[in-house]
Amino acid sequence: IETKLPKVGTTIFTVMSQLAAGHGAVNLGQGFPDFSVPGRLVDELDRAMREGHNQYPPMTGVPSLRNAIATKTERLYGHRPDTDAEITVTSGATEAIFNAIHAVVRAGDEVIVLDPAYDCYEPAIDLAGARAVHVPLDPATFAPDWQKVKDAISPRTRMLMINSPHNPSGAMLSAADMETVAGLLRDTGIFLLSDEVYEHIVFDGARHESALRYPELRERTFVISSFGKTYHCTGWKIGYCIAPPALSAEFRKVHQYNVFCTFAPAQHAFAAMLDAEPEHYEQLGAFYQAKRDRFREQLLGTKLRPLPVPGGYFQLADYSAVSDLGDFEFCRWLTIEKGVTAIPLSPFYETPPSDQRLVRLCFAKNDATMDAAIERLQKL
Amino acid sequence: IETKLPKVGTTIFTVMSQLAAGHGAVNLGQGFPDFSVPGRLVDELDRAMREGHNQYPPMTGVPSLRNAIATKTERLYGHRPDTDAEITVTSGATEAIFNAIHAVVRAGDEVIVLDPAYDCYEPAIDLAGARAVHVPLDPATFAPDWQKVKDAISPRTRMLMINSPHNPSGAMLSAADMETVAGLLRDTGIFLLSDEVYEHIVFDGARHESALRYPELRERTFVISSFGKTYHCTGWKIGYCIAPPALSAEFRKVHQYNVFCTFAPAQHAFAAMLDAEPEHYEQLGAFYQAKRDRFREQLLGTKLRPLPVPGGYFQLADYSAVSDLGDFEFCRWLTIEKGVTAIPLSPFYETPPSDQRLVRLCFAKNDATMDAAIERLQKL
Ligand SMILES: CSCCC(=O)C(=O)O
Ligand SMILES: CSCCC(=O)C(=O)O
Repeated sequence: IETKLPKVGTTIFTVMSQLAAGHGAVNLGQGFPDFSVPGRLVDELDRAMREGHNQYPPMTGVPSLRNAIATKTERLYGHRPDTDAEITVTSGATEAIFNAIHAVVRAGDEVIVLDPAYDCYEPAIDLAGARAVHVPLDPATFAPDWQKVKDAISPRTRMLMINSPHNPSGAMLSAADMETVAGLLRDTGIFLLSDEVYEHIVFDGARHESALRYPELRERTFVISSFGKTYHCTGWKIGYCIAPPALSAEFRKVHQYNVFCTFAPAQHAFAAMLDAEPEHYEQLGAFYQAKRDRFREQLLGTKLRPLPVPGGYFQLADYSAVSDLGDFEFCRWLTIEKGVTAIPLSPFYETPPSDQRLVRLCFAKNDATMDAAIERLQKL
Repeated sequence: IETKLPKVGTTIFTVMSQLAAGHGAVNLGQGFPDFSVPGRLVDELDRAMREGHNQYPPMTGVPSLRNAIATKTERLYGHRPDTDAEITVTSGATEAIFNAIHAVVRAGDEVIVLDPAYDCYEPAIDLAGARAVHVPLDPATFAPDWQKVKDAISPRTRMLMINSPHNPSGAMLSAADMETVAGLLRDTGIFLLSDEVYEHIVFDGARHESALRYPELRERTFVISSFGKTYHCTGWKIGYCIAPPALSAEFRKVHQYNVFCTFAPAQHAFAAMLDAEPEHYEQLGAFYQAKRDRFREQLLGTKLRPLPVPGGYFQLADYSAVSDLGDFEFCRWLTIEKGVTAIPLSPFYETPPSDQRLVRLCFAKNDATMDAAIERLQKL
């Protein structure tokens, strides 16, 4: 059978996690925490099941959760999306990204993707019969070159995808960036997809520039986030999309016939958690900043050179002082020979920069895990 | 914004559930139980969370669950699918149907759908850029006319979709039907999608003719099922697809970038439940048969005429002795004026039979709920 997705293989995250497991390596590859979900969240989920919230929730999401998302959004970004018309709960951010693309991107369209990019963007674009147009971020700072983006716009451009804080680099878009995007898209029919799953993990007093802060962007944007990163439960797969009513209507047509609705008890649990403990997401930046700073300090005692990390829970590190191997080969070697698993950067690119010697290390881990990794990395 | 899915509106299930809620009607419309999830399942899910199964499970599903599915399949249908290569856990059967279609159906292809058909089939086909070719089932028995199916096959036919026990009618395919399907598809490149979500809800000693029983069908079939109907938890959204390795590989390419993976704690809970209590699914037919028989008996005391129900948890009823209204209008009237909600059949058709006066009533309810409905229906 001829494949519809010739470029798709097993994700690099699964490949590296399996290699890590096979070799007993400390797994700093795939991005997931190794510490506990907040106890309140588990208790609330348990309670929701026992109270009988086990049948189809509304297709758009449980009202109390949509309401809690609206409240959180207003508190943080000064704009309250309409609970009924603008918020849709999804089976993780991945489903939301897939739906947004399938809702508006048509066969023959183009979608601009900034490389390095998270690996689920392009297959969804391909499956919609469209084409991903890749524009590289600055190889040193991972900042967008907006002139290059402008040059990539064609009459077929249907969507621009942005991601801040950025996976894999941790780079963040500034207010000036957002104003520039608004100017670029003004008077075009181009939609924006803003992947903001690391919205609460920002450091050094920086402000997360959600697209929701910008009225001109809001009207053309699918803002996508998720609870997996915020509540240490990447395996729970509850995310959401905020978009204006006309875009949400199209988004929901796909969602309704893609998964229809999402695990009900967790929706009730997140609603309770968001309302009862806003300090959880407010303090998440500080929580991860301590982990980042500790890891960075430790890395300075190794031959890996850490890059700046403005947000997210990934640390990029330059290994050129250690090895001349390409990044995929280096990550295999690091896992098999040195017992630490990282993610190579080249799979995030259509055309990886040939001289790049960077790997991504996840610091969403307990101190003991990080210490075990550092002990091994010191021997490089 | 021009829509990609012009035919899609709010599902009839949501429309009728909202109408029921608005008028305090007894809701026998949307198919969901009003009794409890098995206690063991809730306890196991709770335990899985507290044991820390909260991060990304494998993209294909938790191994213990895929193993339990293989064991159940072997026990019931005499064929053990390969745990690694042939079983994929999904976010409900809806996602599985969506993925199977997107995995193999290309722009310009045709997919044969037997009407009346569950409402998520056609939008997924449309979104893949293909066309649903509708073949009516017998209006009295809901049996397929295989000659009509044969006549509908064209060089563009890529897939045939079947569903047994059938929603909305409860009709079941026989062994002879399955042999005929095998003959029809022999030497063609046509794939089969077999929607078997009501596989355990079969009555009167009948045997569920899973496509997995038929080696010739198996090699071209996506068999799709779900735990929502079996474990009284339609809001949990865990389903699965069994398909041969080459088809599963394509299916997984879509799944990987559609939702990636599915709520991990529930996967562990279903694995434990399937292994520890096979009598749950073995006795489900008897459990629902008692409900069917009780409801049928009660309906004979009303002006509604019940049709035979070989499987599933829906009772079709002819209302022509009560009203000349079209089925949608009748269902509105029944909800608003009589306080009972049913589902009209016409939304399941491309071209509804003009003289059909049938509604669908869900009997997955406690006796008290059914009694309350009957008390109202007796006044028709
Ligand atoms: C879906 S597995 C990938 C997890 C993740 O977000 C990452 O590691 O970048
Ligand atoms: C997804 S809501 C529809 C539920 C159902 O399976 C039905 O009522 O037929």
